[in-house]
Amino acid sequence: MPRQFPKLNISEVDEQVRLLAEKVFAKVLREEDSKDALSLFTVPEDCPIGQKEAKERELQKELAEQQSVETAKRFLFFFYFFFQVTVDDYEQAAKSLVKALLIREKYSRLAYHRFPRTTSQYLCSMQQEKWKVEDEVCPHFHSPPEENEDPYNLDDAPDNLNYVVKIRGGIPYVYDNKEMMEVNEPRSLPYPDLETYTLDLSHVLALIADGPTRTYCHSRLNFLEGKFSLHAMLKEMSELKEVKSNPHRDFYNVRKVDTHIHAAACMNQKHLLRFIKHTYQTEPDRIVAEKKGKKMTLKQVFESLHMDPYDLTVDSLDVHAGRQTFHRFDKFNSKYNPVGASELRDLYLKTENYIGGEYFARMVKEVARELEESKYQYTEPRLSIYGRSPDEWLNLAKWFIKHKVYSPNMRWIIQVPRIYDIFRSKNILPSFGKMLENIFVPLFEATINPKDHKELHLFLKYVTGFDSVDDESKHSGHMFSDKSLNPDLWTSEKNPPYSYYLYYMYVNIMLLNNLRKERGMCTFLFRPHCGEAGSITHLVSAFLTADNISHGLLLKKSPVLQYLYYLAQIPIAMSPLSNNSLFLEYSKNPLREFLHKGLHVSLSTDDPMQFHYTKEALMEEYAIAAQVWKLSTCDLCEIARNSVLQSGLSDKEKQKFLGVNYCKEGPEGNDIRKTNVAQIRMAFRYETLCNELSFLFDAMRTDEISTLSK
Amino acid sequence: MPRQFPKLNISEVDEQVRLLAEKVFAKVLREEDSKDALSLFTVPEDCPIGQKEAKERELQKELAEQQSVETAKRFLFFFYFFFQVTVDDYEQAAKSLVKALLIREKYSRLAYHRFPRTTSQYLCSMQQEKWKVEDEVCPHFHSPPEENEDPYNLDDAPDNLNYVVKIRGGIPYVYDNKEMMEVNEPRSLPYPDLETYTLDLSHVLALIADGPTRTYCHSRLNFLEGKFSLHAMLKEMSELKEVKSNPHRDFYNVRKVDTHIHAAACMNQKHLLRFIKHTYQTEPDRIVAEKKGKKMTLKQVFESLHMDPYDLTVDSLDVHAGRQTFHRFDKFNSKYNPVGASELRDLYLKTENYIGGEYFARMVKEVARELEESKYQYTEPRLSIYGRSPDEWLNLAKWFIKHKVYSPNMRWIIQVPRIYDIFRSKNILPSFGKMLENIFVPLFEATINPKDHKELHLFLKYVTGFDSVDDESKHSGHMFSDKSLNPDLWTSEKNPPYSYYLYYMYVNIMLLNNLRKERGMCTFLFRPHCGEAGSITHLVSAFLTADNISHGLLLKKSPVLQYLYYLAQIPIAMSPLSNNSLFLEYSKNPLREFLHKGLHVSLSTDDPMQFHYTKEALMEEYAIAAQVWKLSTCDLCEIARNSVLQSGLSDKEKQKFLGVNYCKEGPEGNDIRKTNVAQIRMAFRYETLCNELSFLFDAMRTDEISTLSK
Repeated sequence: MPRQFPKLNISEVDEQVRLLAEKVFAKVLREEDSKDALSLFTVPEDCPIGQKEAKERELQKELAEQQSVETAKRFLFFFYFFFQVTVDDYEQAAKSLVKALLIREKYSRLAYHRFPRTTSQYLCSMQQEKWKVEDEVCPHFHSPPEENEDPYNLDDAPDNLNYVVKIRGGIPYVYDNKEMMEVNEPRSLPYPDLETYTLDLSHVLALIADGPTRTYCHSRLNFLEGKFSLHAMLKEMSELKEVKSNPHRDFYNVRKVDTHIHAAACMNQKHLLRFIKHTYQTEPDRIVAEKKGKKMTLKQVFESLHMDPYDLTVDSLDVHAGRQTFHRFDKFNSKYNPVGASELRDLYLKTENYIGGEYFARMVKEVARELEESKYQYTEPRLSIYGRSPDEWLNLAKWFIKHKVYSPNMRWIIQVPRIYDIFRSKNILPSFGKMLENIFVPLFEATINPKDHKELHLFLKYVTGFDSVDDESKHSGHMFSDKSLNPDLWTSEKNPPYSYYLYYMYVNIMLLNNLRKERGMCTFLFRPHCGEAGSITHLVSAFLTADNISHGLLLKKSPVLQYLYYLAQIPIAMSPLSNNSLFLEYSKNPLREFLHKGLHVSLSTDDPMQFHYTKEALMEEYAIAAQVWKLSTCDLCEIARNSVLQSGLSDKEKQKFLGVNYCKEGPEGNDIRKTNVAQIRMAFRYETLCNELSFLFDAMRTDEISTLSK
Repeated sequence: MPRQFPKLNISEVDEQVRLLAEKVFAKVLREEDSKDALSLFTVPEDCPIGQKEAKERELQKELAEQQSVETAKRFLFFFYFFFQVTVDDYEQAAKSLVKALLIREKYSRLAYHRFPRTTSQYLCSMQQEKWKVEDEVCPHFHSPPEENEDPYNLDDAPDNLNYVVKIRGGIPYVYDNKEMMEVNEPRSLPYPDLETYTLDLSHVLALIADGPTRTYCHSRLNFLEGKFSLHAMLKEMSELKEVKSNPHRDFYNVRKVDTHIHAAACMNQKHLLRFIKHTYQTEPDRIVAEKKGKKMTLKQVFESLHMDPYDLTVDSLDVHAGRQTFHRFDKFNSKYNPVGASELRDLYLKTENYIGGEYFARMVKEVARELEESKYQYTEPRLSIYGRSPDEWLNLAKWFIKHKVYSPNMRWIIQVPRIYDIFRSKNILPSFGKMLENIFVPLFEATINPKDHKELHLFLKYVTGFDSVDDESKHSGHMFSDKSLNPDLWTSEKNPPYSYYLYYMYVNIMLLNNLRKERGMCTFLFRPHCGEAGSITHLVSAFLTADNISHGLLLKKSPVLQYLYYLAQIPIAMSPLSNNSLFLEYSKNPLREFLHKGLHVSLSTDDPMQFHYTKEALMEEYAIAAQVWKLSTCDLCEIARNSVLQSGLSDKEKQKFLGVNYCKEGPEGNDIRKTNVAQIRMAFRYETLCNELSFLFDAMRTDEISTLSK
């Protein structure tokens, strides 16, 4: 598949698909109006532990039968018989699912996002094309500096290309020079325009509402779960044996990446408390803030808050989630203020303040030192860029360099909070377009002319992606479509909807990546929070635009999306302890079920300050999952391996941590000596995925295939 | 209540009670024969999280009503109306429960075990006696040495009393001198003989099978749970506020004691692995074992096992419980052998071996150093005395002193495994009586003549109790009664039943304590494993004989015992992570429910090597409970406070950790500045207990009372 990007327009698209998609969106709007936040999580009441026995006999029968059928058509008959899906329905479902996969592949390739090789190979062969490794499009991450290299070396910035960039209507245009800009002749970079995007989105939206497709996906997912159950029963001891006989490597010394964590909460509450007390003891007279023109010492700050840090406790600090935060994301957010005082948040947890973010940097570095000592744990903390002003990037880069925040065990993600409405209401921003400009123009400029943006150019080497964050259960009341106002015209105080944010983030990141790739610079992944709460349509947007997502809880509600996320092996960073405090009780968390079915899940902490008790937050997360769900060593190591794959660690590091063939899928790509994942497990996962893909493609009549692949 | 101990005999006892008790025992025997281990744990399937809402309205009504009734009789009517308990039944139940409490009080006082002051005061006033603080019987624990004192000082051993001790028929007799022994005139020490004991036991056994009493207790327990639910809803925020405004103290710096942990498993699997690798790297050529007369170096030991320690992993070490151990205590026990090799267990986890237990001591000390650094955590590890030979004690004491194992953060418990049958079948022991002799005679001798047993005398200062350990689900096939053979005649290869072990352990500890108290030496608590599995009758035996128990899961099955354990505030050290691997899935663990009802529960790790992942096992235990059950800070601190109370820490330490008035019950006994438990919570617990006791005593007609208190 070449990296072309055909523009779609409405006349070409089945009117019915468009109408169905609009219905889905409209339904979401209606639901939001009469919303019951809880109803979104009405998962079965029963505890997931030990409930499967009943289904297993039935499934064993099914499996046996599947092995004995010799052609897909025979299985079709069986399938049709058991699940009341007519052969026509089934073909239609398969066709639509394949089309959805092709759409995701198109968006992924364009943005240098990842798409699984196995699925890609099946899509190729279906289209009678030959899959070639050189055609594969991969993200490019900066390899960390060697031990003798200076991670803050500013001298290797490439030359100025003299390109000019301008964001209009939320879309960045790159011109060869000023003259070309004046005559409005941008360089030709392919991107999905709003019409194309909404049409592609419509296809997947229509799919999730389509009865036969839902039935199809539902039964395949049940099958996947049952199949894993059987695998576990039959092969658990063999896996254990394989893992036991694997020398030197165990769960403790396989690499794990905390794939979702916020920098401002990466220390636990006890750590923050100790740090506050320590600064008060050692530098009470230091000037640390300025309030209404008056400079204040640390002592004065505490006096003005009527607080003696000696008396401070984790209880009075009050940054830990409790029963009060369940289903209250608003309360949760205010927990970021120690002792409820935004002064302390500004002083201790921000990069921009009177002391240049020094305290925050020191704490982050303490966390980094612990990771480096632990050796096997890596983390991808989120730092905020708000889009209030174009200076934010330079300030952040300077903070990073000045305080020497680099750590080999950390790779950075930029989180952009979806709070345009707040800035607009305070008149900080005139339009949504301006926010996008503030966020992205500095990046294009640093990419075009690194010599004049040395600090940012350097910092971006250690940035591997973007996150989009905020409460997903907030709703905007606006229905996203190709008729939505463009960002320059979006001047109302209303917040744009989630899908709108995602589309514009995607287009900007995608175009930036193409430019950076051209220059041999590292590219960025889009890794939004998605499916934590709110509308199921968020997961549809992310299916097109995201490399991977954080949370994904709501996949539980849509069999079609869950199955698509499985087939496309979209990485999902799950944080059951965070969910337990905010949205979903631990025992009801779908992580175990997703893992069993073969979705690409990892474990992450999200927010150790709020959700964890021990010094080893990531280990606590793994330990609790292991205990509550009785995960085996092989399960844990599979999750850990997933986390490394999902991460923005460089090719070199992944080769070192997972094995030189990590890019290959199936047992071939696994080096048990490094990952401690049994080859039996790897083979099972690989065969299962191939089986699902074959099953899908066998169902399509060849004459149908040609209509898809345009 | 004076410390007399009236002997009972069968003719005095209601024949019916005796018959009923025999029926209970016989039923247990039958059940054991046709045993379904699982059926013992058929607790409700539903997850305990968030299920209460339905009951609450009903209870609110009940509570409101209870507050409005002015006399107990009026409430009686209501009670009768709702629960179909006739007034007569109800009086009978109350009478029997009070009698059971009096029995426990009698056994507790005799043994220097603890009995709650509040309950004791009610029992006194019921008998028209005046409760006096000087009459209270308390255990005596040795205060730890001051910082400038030598914890290994052997020079302060008191003089020889020249008493003579002899154990006959499992009962220790102490004589003033040899002459008195020859004429068989022992010193008069009160103790419950087998007949008295079995009759007292019969009373409680009859009670748990009695319909009206079960109904009564069941409804009271439901009431307790509902009442706490309401309390939580109404007072949660006030408790939180109280705790937040408590300066300097939070969950992290309240004292917690790990009340149940086995020394041979007190390090986690990673720690053990690291230690093994370290010894191999640093001292491969040291002679560490002798096999068939041939001395072996560490290197040779590993060679003989075909093992390279570099390749060793926690997986191959295989000391961690997995899904394979669930309901398989036998498998669990074999997990104590690293890499399945008993050679490594002997070398690394035993106090007696070629290197004098040095490796084991070093690891224990590493654990101790970490506790000392953490400052707020204490632990009560179990060391084994088997009763194979009388030398075991001296060897253990020498190990302790030679390797300087003392730590201010550790207090020792001696565990006696119930494995007479194994020793007997190997002909190591001629009778059960000999086993008791080997265990207890050295203690009596060291107590009578410390000067000649300096090492043991010293070591015993740091021992605070005895544990009785093994798989409770094993059954002996013998029915315990006053006709059971005495220990000297118990020469068969059959293992005595649990109740038999407990009775003889109790009598020996109790008599030893009385002798030690006379000399001003520290006394010992009997703290058996109990109610982890097996027969419910174990909990009846412990109700009489134990100061506190470990596990207590099976209280879930008997409302009568659960209610009695509540009224007598018998401490229960619970280890849900251990249970999760062995007997009961985490979400079904009754800890949360017991805590809510007001039972005196603490959290303990049992066995970090097998059950925990992180370096901070006790914190992991608390964290998981907090997360899965959404425990509040106040809940956690209440559990931590319970753990200090349950422990064998000295009076001085308890005053320091809990407040000077810790012996008092209710809010008066709580110093929130030290415990961080809200006074609102303390008052609720105290009022609730008083309410239950009043309710019980009000129900008894005064003319009935006199018949009880003989």
